[in-house]
Amino acid sequence: MKESIDYIYKEQKELSTFSGIGALLGWDQMTYMPQKGGIERSEQISLISRLAHEKFTADELYNHVKKLNEIDALKKLEQKDKAVALRLMKDIEKSRKVPSEFVERMSKTTTIAYMVWQDAREKNEFSLFAPHLEKIVELEKEYCTYINLPGHAYNNLLDDYEEGMTVDRLVKEFSFLKSELKAILEKITSSDIYQKQQLFDGKFSEEKQRKICDFIIEKLHLPKNRARLDVSTHPFTTSMGNDDVRITTNYERENPLFSFFSTVHEAGHALYELGLPRDEYKDTVISDSPSLGLHESQSRFWENMIARDKHFWKFLYPEFQNIAKDELSGIDLDTWYYYINQVEPSFIRVEADELTYCLHVILRFEIEVALMEGKISVSELPQVWNEKMHDLLGITPKNDKEGVLQDMHWSGGSFGYFPTYVIGTVYSSQLFKQLINENTNLYTEIEQGNFNNILNWLIENIHRYGRLLTADEIIKKTCGEGLNSKVFIDYLKDKYYALYEV
Amino acid sequence: MKESIDYIYKEQKELSTFSGIGALLGWDQMTYMPQKGGIERSEQISLISRLAHEKFTADELYNHVKKLNEIDALKKLEQKDKAVALRLMKDIEKSRKVPSEFVERMSKTTTIAYMVWQDAREKNEFSLFAPHLEKIVELEKEYCTYINLPGHAYNNLLDDYEEGMTVDRLVKEFSFLKSELKAILEKITSSDIYQKQQLFDGKFSEEKQRKICDFIIEKLHLPKNRARLDVSTHPFTTSMGNDDVRITTNYERENPLFSFFSTVHEAGHALYELGLPRDEYKDTVISDSPSLGLHESQSRFWENMIARDKHFWKFLYPEFQNIAKDELSGIDLDTWYYYINQVEPSFIRVEADELTYCLHVILRFEIEVALMEGKISVSELPQVWNEKMHDLLGITPKNDKEGVLQDMHWSGGSFGYFPTYVIGTVYSSQLFKQLINENTNLYTEIEQGNFNNILNWLIENIHRYGRLLTADEIIKKTCGEGLNSKVFIDYLKDKYYALYEV
Repeated sequence: MKESIDYIYKEQKELSTFSGIGALLGWDQMTYMPQKGGIERSEQISLISRLAHEKFTADELYNHVKKLNEIDALKKLEQKDKAVALRLMKDIEKSRKVPSEFVERMSKTTTIAYMVWQDAREKNEFSLFAPHLEKIVELEKEYCTYINLPGHAYNNLLDDYEEGMTVDRLVKEFSFLKSELKAILEKITSSDIYQKQQLFDGKFSEEKQRKICDFIIEKLHLPKNRARLDVSTHPFTTSMGNDDVRITTNYERENPLFSFFSTVHEAGHALYELGLPRDEYKDTVISDSPSLGLHESQSRFWENMIARDKHFWKFLYPEFQNIAKDELSGIDLDTWYYYINQVEPSFIRVEADELTYCLHVILRFEIEVALMEGKISVSELPQVWNEKMHDLLGITPKNDKEGVLQDMHWSGGSFGYFPTYVIGTVYSSQLFKQLINENTNLYTEIEQGNFNNILNWLIENIHRYGRLLTADEIIKKTCGEGLNSKVFIDYLKDKYYALYEV
Repeated sequence: MKESIDYIYKEQKELSTFSGIGALLGWDQMTYMPQKGGIERSEQISLISRLAHEKFTADELYNHVKKLNEIDALKKLEQKDKAVALRLMKDIEKSRKVPSEFVERMSKTTTIAYMVWQDAREKNEFSLFAPHLEKIVELEKEYCTYINLPGHAYNNLLDDYEEGMTVDRLVKEFSFLKSELKAILEKITSSDIYQKQQLFDGKFSEEKQRKICDFIIEKLHLPKNRARLDVSTHPFTTSMGNDDVRITTNYERENPLFSFFSTVHEAGHALYELGLPRDEYKDTVISDSPSLGLHESQSRFWENMIARDKHFWKFLYPEFQNIAKDELSGIDLDTWYYYINQVEPSFIRVEADELTYCLHVILRFEIEVALMEGKISVSELPQVWNEKMHDLLGITPKNDKEGVLQDMHWSGGSFGYFPTYVIGTVYSSQLFKQLINENTNLYTEIEQGNFNNILNWLIENIHRYGRLLTADEIIKKTCGEGLNSKVFIDYLKDKYYALYEV
């Protein structure tokens, strides 16, 4: 047994090292890599993926893990080793269900599909991308037959990102959300304030945007010696290890709201990564997030619950004004607070406001499920997309670039991923509600720009569990109940009805 | 035979991919990595090194290579496959002489030694570093017993960087160089101009230094889509692949000469990397430099032969002045040319002028050989260093930080490496002499900032060979003779006697 325990830790350590290497290869590709390095880079990434996959699904590792998972063995294991052995067993058995040959086929298909998607988006021609997306949908269906969970085929896809989540559950939550969000939106867009609304279109130099972003990540306790902020086309977070977490933003839109809020969003992901269990669980399968929804709850928490809150701006707005005197002259705190929370149905998900954001995601979820059920075909997507957009947000994209071609996810085969954005958003509101209950001094702390207690509360109640519990279990333990969209809707009503005086 | 040929190309391809991954891990460590990421990074680097080493020394690869190296097989091979098989055989047989266990021991020792060296340098305490250096010297001696080339033990170390080079040969060249350089230096320091000399100490903002460096690398045809310039403590060049070469510089010294000349120097290395054979020899053991001396000849060529030449500044000085009007006001071209070529014995090798630079290197060579011969011990090093410094340059370091502790090379086990700096310097003067003979329009082109023909000449006569020939063979083919220090001395005399009017 000692031999098996040693073996599984040694292998997990190496897998964790591979994972850090893969993260660096990807990060550099998106940030600094000269354009022509792309071909060799994709070979480097696929070599590391293959080696890691071979290691993870190797018979020897599996046999050791199986040995530790025998009932007699489990009984004798220390708590820690038991948790690791159980988790590892589940992960490996799932991985081993998928043939390597399929993984390679999927990887080749998506590598090409991603390039074609970029081109199709550039040229605004969905028909270029359609045949590749068709192949991907077929591969997703094939994947589901390998995993073969009970219930809806799409559950197999959901499970990769949100363990245990089901279509049934989501359909229930999302129907509620959809009708409520549409009703709130309807009420707001009928308001006088909305009718007269002018969107903030201030422009800040890149230098000023940088200053603001650097300032806020320091305030949020992102440690300089364990994290950094760089620039990429699309903001993201990645980890090279427990002590090396990178986030990115983009200063191209001269409107500072994008770089600021995306930086806070990614900082939330990064703080989670930095808070994952290190001591005894470092370099084990436990030191990771149990779900993307929970991960997203951390980014949305800081982005929406904190950084779109009025108390937050009592602290930050003077600093913001300090950096951008001219641009913000004549804009008082109330007006600024209104600017950063303006509701406006728009086409691009990543630029959507807090209220309409989830409708963008629900649209994608409904399309993915329908594709998996064969109820719609890929060729119908642009039309279906635009109809749904009109139904949910009352607007119709002028072209596919601002419609069905906007997100890269499908080109990468990430089906089942979008719903985690809503799950995380709902979780974030539940966490904030709980935190207010527990910390009566919360708003004062936020007004003072003091985020110590908030971060420690998140570490204590979310981060430190890693994968010792599922996302659902962690939220239940912390908030007293699992996913509950009503909390989110109540929060939105409180905030936005006041803002639009309806 | 077909099977063996396919096998060796497949393996070389993967080795080349590993090499690119390793390069990125190292580059990031020196440029962007948050400080605390260091421990995990060293694990990532050593995992990749180990996998690459295992692959390169594997029995299966060796057996295939041996098969191709049988006389009957060699005869049937195409020219290209033959070159690859021969080169590979030599490299693998050398690698297989060294036990993996030794490689690991060396790697662990140098990882610790490097950290201790940093600390010892910081604290200016050689005694902290001494025990680690002693271990390394013992390991170097052990290494020589594995390689076991004929002649002086130190030949085994030289051979890793400069294939075929021997102590005998270097002692001959270096004795000549030493006495000539000392004589020139003596003549210069006795001159009236030297006696009245004031060193340039202009300070440029980082932004201006950046502008100048960005300008010059573009002028030197370093392609933006295949290369980039970043910042690190010590400037270096590295390749993630044939289409992704990175150089670094450092703007901390506000004197712009350091960032400018180091950028040109590294650009020379990068242009060589970008010019290595790609088409048929890409991802083979041929697509690399045959020696560090030849590599250094390319950096020194651009740094000294071109960028310290007066014709070059006829083109660049107006641009320089444009970027830094105030800092250069009142400094005319002649004065500037004199500033950038001032001779001044100093303690730090990487900041030495063109004339005294080689004396710094000869000092290290003599110490390394004496250490290997057991004629001096590690504990005597500070004293020996200072005595030699006084003998060669007439100055004595105030402390070990500006003496024996200044370079990182020994802490990394890089014995036998220093001489390549002199070899490259001498080669660069030989190449320049040859180029002048072949291109009568050369100085006009340089004055016009037109480096096309120069770069193409280097590609044609140096880069494109890769490792099809040894450095010695390439220089002989291009310049009509091998390493010849007299060419370098003649060049120095011409230039510096004129400058100092002696």
